[in-house]
Amino acid sequence: MTETTNTASNAAPDTDLPGEPVTVVGLGLMGKALAAAFLAAGHPTTVWNRTPGKADELVGRGAVFASSVTDALEASPLVVVCLSDAAAVRDTLGPHRAALAGRTLVNLTSGTSEEARELASWTDDYLDGAIMAVPEVIGHPEAFLLFSGAPGAFERHRDSLGRLGNATYFGEDAGLASLYDVALLGVMWGTLNAFLHGAALLGAAKVDASAFAPFANQWIASVTGFISAYAEQIDHGAYPAEDATLETHLATMKYLVRESAAAGIDTEWPARLQALTERAIDAGHSGAGYAGLIDVFRGQA
Amino acid sequence: MTETTNTASNAAPDTDLPGEPVTVVGLGLMGKALAAAFLAAGHPTTVWNRTPGKADELVGRGAVFASSVTDALEASPLVVVCLSDAAAVRDTLGPHRAALAGRTLVNLTSGTSEEARELASWTDDYLDGAIMAVPEVIGHPEAFLLFSGAPGAFERHRDSLGRLGNATYFGEDAGLASLYDVALLGVMWGTLNAFLHGAALLGAAKVDASAFAPFANQWIASVTGFISAYAEQIDHGAYPAEDATLETHLATMKYLVRESAAAGIDTEWPARLQALTERAIDAGHSGAGYAGLIDVFRGQA
Repeated sequence: MTETTNTASNAAPDTDLPGEPVTVVGLGLMGKALAAAFLAAGHPTTVWNRTPGKADELVGRGAVFASSVTDALEASPLVVVCLSDAAAVRDTLGPHRAALAGRTLVNLTSGTSEEARELASWTDDYLDGAIMAVPEVIGHPEAFLLFSGAPGAFERHRDSLGRLGNATYFGEDAGLASLYDVALLGVMWGTLNAFLHGAALLGAAKVDASAFAPFANQWIASVTGFISAYAEQIDHGAYPAEDATLETHLATMKYLVRESAAAGIDTEWPARLQALTERAIDAGHSGAGYAGLIDVFRGQA
Repeated sequence: MTETTNTASNAAPDTDLPGEPVTVVGLGLMGKALAAAFLAAGHPTTVWNRTPGKADELVGRGAVFASSVTDALEASPLVVVCLSDAAAVRDTLGPHRAALAGRTLVNLTSGTSEEARELASWTDDYLDGAIMAVPEVIGHPEAFLLFSGAPGAFERHRDSLGRLGNATYFGEDAGLASLYDVALLGVMWGTLNAFLHGAALLGAAKVDASAFAPFANQWIASVTGFISAYAEQIDHGAYPAEDATLETHLATMKYLVRESAAAGIDTEWPARLQALTERAIDAGHSGAGYAGLIDVFRGQA
């Protein structure tokens, strides 16, 4: 699987050689954590921030504070940028684009795939990245970092980027990292909302959320198996009902709506599940399996 | 954890003794699978169905077809019922309730918690159950069966019920099995919908669903850790933002809406996620962690 060959995690240095020099532009909470992880792994680290005071602690640990953006860019073959938004990246680096020649620009600023593709046009050697982690876990394997962009750039810098956490490369389209980021966050929100709704329903019957959680999590592990199977179906463009049809799911969704109403809790969430399924059925998928709902989410049903 | 001590799975017989006699009423696809699993495990098995022909194959394997409902009930200390709905249970067993005295009635018919509680009033020894499995896997550990009802009944019959799959007892309230059932199915639907939406989003960028699935599933494994932590918070009634605040989640949800619109896919699903979060924020939870959304699902925000 590609994620194995394209994933790096070198939170613990595997060599006594000093790492390649890196520059970190932007020292908010996340930028500071990134610079600290590079320093801890032995990389000569140059930092820059509009407000110099934010660099004091990092300088105390060995970082060099560059006196200008140009100096910061020229200090390292790998430049990591982590600012508030894409506009800040344009404002900060735009006037100094010439200094990016021959360097890899890794943009870890939050933004959309369109913004990432636009910034990618600045340089031949651009990687966009998204961080699925809080600053506290940067430098540890539980920090997930998603990258996409210039072919070869991830490969050349994978040891360095792997210092930040579990770093994965998704492909040449610079927008992919942002898309994977929001798609994965969407998976989280949907899963959490569904758990919270279930916890509210069982809570009305005096069941603790902590009593429900282990069963929910055990069941979610089964659901990941369905996801793998449905993904294959989606790629093959056919949704045979190997377990239950959408018609069968719909009947049970109505129970969830009824139970929610009887318990006096929110009925909108299950009613939404029901409405989505009804749309798929109206589009001709009543005998299909659950993966048939992909057409609704594609906007085709 | 209670689920360890209250879970039985004895798909493979652990004794040479014949199992206790069991009766199965209702021989639809699921009822037949239940009877077949009891037979395979060596239980003397009596069956009854309105249409006798459905029993032929089971009789060929050693089942006894009872000539009346009363005979069926009187044949075994454990009576398992699996009919189309609660009304069918009332119609079929109602006239023969006297024959239930001294027996355990296990109702595996789909229904609501209210219907389960009503049927529980028929006898002192009632267990309600829900089956999270297709008939094909009954008798195997991957079949999940949820039980609730009379204290002691599950304990007395756990070996027999464990023949059907992974059987778990949730407590004395006969309605709990149905509630856990729809709550767990809701977790599945929410998780699957979120995956399908993400697959549609990435699909618009030419990423195969099968390329997305392993990352989604890896991330979902992390999400189960959040669920455990949020469950503790819910039970303690406080939702400190240990990772990100709802305000931060909201900002990223807007990215998901924007990316969905830009990709030309469904925007209603992410807009719904956003709306729920906005309701929690409006209720004063902007600085809370994600678990604060429980108040929205409780209908209190």
